[in-house]
Amino acid sequence: MRIGELSRRTGVPVPTIKYYLREGLLPGGELTSPNQAQYGEPHVHRLKLVRAMVEVGKLSVAATRDVLQAIDEPGNSLHQVLGIAQAAVTPAVTAADPDAWESAEKLVEELVERHGWEVKPGNPARQALAQLVVTLRDLGQDDLLDVFDDYAAAAERLSTAELALIGRREGLDSKVEGAVLGTVLGDALIGAMRRLAQANASHRAFEGARG
Amino acid sequence: MRIGELSRRTGVPVPTIKYYLREGLLPGGELTSPNQAQYGEPHVHRLKLVRAMVEVGKLSVAATRDVLQAIDEPGNSLHQVLGIAQAAVTPAVTAADPDAWESAEKLVEELVERHGWEVKPGNPARQALAQLVVTLRDLGQDDLLDVFDDYAAAAERLSTAELALIGRREGLDSKVEGAVLGTVLGDALIGAMRRLAQANASHRAFEGARG
Repeated sequence: MRIGELSRRTGVPVPTIKYYLREGLLPGGELTSPNQAQYGEPHVHRLKLVRAMVEVGKLSVAATRDVLQAIDEPGNSLHQVLGIAQAAVTPAVTAADPDAWESAEKLVEELVERHGWEVKPGNPARQALAQLVVTLRDLGQDDLLDVFDDYAAAAERLSTAELALIGRREGLDSKVEGAVLGTVLGDALIGAMRRLAQANASHRAFEGARG
Repeated sequence: MRIGELSRRTGVPVPTIKYYLREGLLPGGELTSPNQAQYGEPHVHRLKLVRAMVEVGKLSVAATRDVLQAIDEPGNSLHQVLGIAQAAVTPAVTAADPDAWESAEKLVEELVERHGWEVKPGNPARQALAQLVVTLRDLGQDDLLDVFDDYAAAAERLSTAELALIGRREGLDSKVEGAVLGTVLGDALIGAMRRLAQANASHRAFEGARG
């Protein structure tokens, strides 16, 4: 199909497709003349995947390219691809007071040990968690740290359920894509679920409390 | 204290403080001369709160202002403030094929009913969830929809634990601030926990699977 048809099939505007081609998010089509290319079903699927990561998962174009390159590299294990996808969705952390930071890292380390998690020391989610600890303490919200173990237990149940489901898939490429989408879209999923559950719990507990 | 001391106390650079003052995120200090203002402890706390929302919660300046205005408005119930905080952290949704959208909304409605949640029809998290359903189906990842009920159950447990904790606080302002921070920072918290739990589960299940 030509690029116009690719646009109709996916709902992605032609200029956006050309941008993704230039940025290396989408492999080029087969050239049928110097300025005309043909695209196939793999392009349709890849374009939908790019859109899911950029528009729904809110990944940057650079982060999306990192993840797609990790998927395409046949030597990568599923565990390695997941690590790259995780790094892509974990925001960078800003510096804090060294003493506060050291104490927060200790709390994270204890939590990881308490849950028996085997996680590399350099995993960026450790820093993300330490930053949350520093922030909550700095705001005098130390009591909120009491929910960290509830969050850890919930995260563990979700990861186990998700990876079990992906493990039942046929074919490694399909497993890899499922694991990456679970990582990239899972944040939006649990975020939306939390808001619905919270709206319900707040409705029952607090409506009118300050009105 | 002068603005330089406010900067030292909070770690926020003076130009950033001036920007927040112009944008109405921080109330002005008490003028002691035409071009000099004094700031107090409430400014220190408010500035830390702004930084937590903008830098850690990744809220836009406009969304942060909406949430702070909701906190400051004494007529708002805790339930109302939470609703505004929820809207601020829920990204806008892009359009999709109407049939696919209608079917996704039906799935979301059934899920909400199945969990007995009382949630307003206009809650933006419903649309966020419907968009995830459309995206996963479009990518042929329908099997991943099977984890939605696990996510819903986890979200419900977390919301209940969090709101119970906040309900035990003294004073409505403290409850409101805790609920808002739970909403704004809770996404980063469950995100980081999911990555650690997933790294552990993936390490156990998949390491070397494609190597």
